[in-house]
Amino acid sequence: MTAYKDFSREELIAEKQALQKRFDEYKAMGLNLDMSRGKPSKEQLDLSMDMLKPVDYVENGFDVRNYGLLDGISSCKKLFAELMDVDEKNVIIGPSASLNLMYDYICQCYCEGVLGSTPWCKLDSVKFLCPVPGYDRHFTILEHFGIEMVNVPMTDEGPDMDVIEELIKSDSVKGMFCVPKYSNPQGITFSDETVKRIAAMKPAAKDFRIIWDNAYCVHDIKEDGDELLNIFSVLGDNEDMVIEVCSTSKMTFPGAGVSALAASEANIAQIMKRLNCQTISYDKMNQLRHVKFFGNLDGIKAHMKKHAAIMKPKFDMVIEHLENELGGLEIASWLDPKGGYFISLDVMNGCAKRVGELCKDAGVTLTTVGATYPYGNDPNNSNIRIAPSLPPVAELDLATQILCVSVRIAAVEKLLEQ
Amino acid sequence: MTAYKDFSREELIAEKQALQKRFDEYKAMGLNLDMSRGKPSKEQLDLSMDMLKPVDYVENGFDVRNYGLLDGISSCKKLFAELMDVDEKNVIIGPSASLNLMYDYICQCYCEGVLGSTPWCKLDSVKFLCPVPGYDRHFTILEHFGIEMVNVPMTDEGPDMDVIEELIKSDSVKGMFCVPKYSNPQGITFSDETVKRIAAMKPAAKDFRIIWDNAYCVHDIKEDGDELLNIFSVLGDNEDMVIEVCSTSKMTFPGAGVSALAASEANIAQIMKRLNCQTISYDKMNQLRHVKFFGNLDGIKAHMKKHAAIMKPKFDMVIEHLENELGGLEIASWLDPKGGYFISLDVMNGCAKRVGELCKDAGVTLTTVGATYPYGNDPNNSNIRIAPSLPPVAELDLATQILCVSVRIAAVEKLLEQ
Repeated sequence: MTAYKDFSREELIAEKQALQKRFDEYKAMGLNLDMSRGKPSKEQLDLSMDMLKPVDYVENGFDVRNYGLLDGISSCKKLFAELMDVDEKNVIIGPSASLNLMYDYICQCYCEGVLGSTPWCKLDSVKFLCPVPGYDRHFTILEHFGIEMVNVPMTDEGPDMDVIEELIKSDSVKGMFCVPKYSNPQGITFSDETVKRIAAMKPAAKDFRIIWDNAYCVHDIKEDGDELLNIFSVLGDNEDMVIEVCSTSKMTFPGAGVSALAASEANIAQIMKRLNCQTISYDKMNQLRHVKFFGNLDGIKAHMKKHAAIMKPKFDMVIEHLENELGGLEIASWLDPKGGYFISLDVMNGCAKRVGELCKDAGVTLTTVGATYPYGNDPNNSNIRIAPSLPPVAELDLATQILCVSVRIAAVEKLLEQ
Repeated sequence: MTAYKDFSREELIAEKQALQKRFDEYKAMGLNLDMSRGKPSKEQLDLSMDMLKPVDYVENGFDVRNYGLLDGISSCKKLFAELMDVDEKNVIIGPSASLNLMYDYICQCYCEGVLGSTPWCKLDSVKFLCPVPGYDRHFTILEHFGIEMVNVPMTDEGPDMDVIEELIKSDSVKGMFCVPKYSNPQGITFSDETVKRIAAMKPAAKDFRIIWDNAYCVHDIKEDGDELLNIFSVLGDNEDMVIEVCSTSKMTFPGAGVSALAASEANIAQIMKRLNCQTISYDKMNQLRHVKFFGNLDGIKAHMKKHAAIMKPKFDMVIEHLENELGGLEIASWLDPKGGYFISLDVMNGCAKRVGELCKDAGVTLTTVGATYPYGNDPNNSNIRIAPSLPPVAELDLATQILCVSVRIAAVEKLLEQ
């Protein structure tokens, strides 16, 4: 296809009319399609129903139905230690959502500081680095605690380390959120080089903490999935700098999974001291069900292949539509991730909100445009997060077509304004 | 029996020798008995296993296995609204432990204040009223946030309201923890008069909050259980002052139950705003299992009768031993509660720690002596919390005898010192 920028004004007007006709046809269908959140589909949820079969709720002679074992049952710690490739002593099993672990950790830093540092609530200025585009719920946590967010651009190898290495010279920069594998929304896996540079950082702030949200650690979609370097293997004497979390929310049941946290012994000790006030224990029955269901890391990997088999046709379809409808027009770019839950689409600068409006008008709900940036403010107004997992294939097919037509209409409108 | 205080010195020495002989016999048995925590017994846990039978995880067309419904599924909100006798709109369903709801709420007040007030972390002095003896985990939360605890003595109608009404004249007194029904550890239920006086309080601090921990709301042991006045029915324009919590931890599975919070619309709104950052939703599959298992409040009450049938012989046995072994000696007093999880035993002033040591020496673990007071400091060194629920009847029989002998030895030792 010819790039829109090479269209004459007359050609653009004709194009707009043709697109509007298609758009009106879609709109007339009175659709109600949802591509807003990374929710697994019913088919995916059904994969884990065997987990609910009766099990014997005793482990090492301990009745896991009762109170106790604040940091989780031993077999579950072992499973997550294997998953994150760390020692069991560095693992705490958490509640159903790793988001809860992240919120609670940031909250703890805010209330009491980090390993003896000044509590962040006592400081005039606390800043966090946010690779963008990123995950809106990380931003929400930071905004809740009044922590100032500083955008760091993503490259195809992870966050721009040159930028980060400058920013961490300020003592008020206290940390960074990362989704290091199949990043949300771009699906980028940090390169070994990036992970090593992160691990070697020497921030001015001694209480600098990286929240390493490994949400998609085993969430390959393609056969040749990405490999992420284990940051704990290269941290050296920086071992206190990283708090890793992950969960089974997108392996078994969202909201009824098991989360886990990995950290240095010093960090674990501080977190355990708080946990000892906060709860008696998380749901150990659910922990045991997960252990019996998966068995070990190989069991998790085999299970994730079943998810991939459901996800791949959806991702392939979106990418195919993007290529067919937008390829060559030079009005949009996207990545074709090997795993994760999203496809990140960058439309022409200044057009993303308009695309969101058009889609909504035609009955397609996207992730709120802007949500992939701190404060909901995408400075280029260009990023759109596509979440292909939830809709059935036929709906996704239609929704993606509507999205593509909307992207084209918004671009033509923009070009006609100029 | 003759009161020890009327014993001659010679009689006391003879008594000590006789008691020591009994004690040594117990000790020689090499026991390892646990009366430390309010853990349900295996028999009680088995009562709820039918809850784990397969259910259809759909409610009102919504797949509860997936993300969403931050404040809980509708049927579960309805069930807890019925239990707490409040409107559904005033209920949030929480994680497995109500302790978590309480910690998180105090933490929220600490970080961001109460409905627009100054965050407690920004204040020089924050105090809380603690009816004593009380629940150690409440004290742990307060100590964690550096909130100063002020003891308020319990009467047989609840906390001493004359004392409270004086203390709340200070603006730095920000709240109070209460276990209003079958209080931990005494098993006292606040009288209607006490509930009404609490509801009518006008604390100097506008951000004064009462944590109404209704942990034992349906936990009768005797047929003629206590009735607690619903504080929300008498709060009038004080409706923002109370945050009520409860859970199924001691109805179904400790650590794998469902908790809930009831509060005014303004408080609910503030909590929801935080929850929206903290999690995506709590475990709705577990919520639905609970709803299907109980059905309604009548179902809960019928279920709790089964618990009572297991608990009652244990409570009766402890009370019987106390009466037979300690009655008339004038060295100890106790209450015979109609419900809850504990029996509170007050031994001779200055003797509780010695009793704990003696019990430990004979293989019986009690709740850490002092734990029923803030900072672990029982000013009279007299209160002991007995938790009869966990041990099988035969073990409890032995453990209580050892406790009684220990109480007598400690008293005789004390009298001989004088």
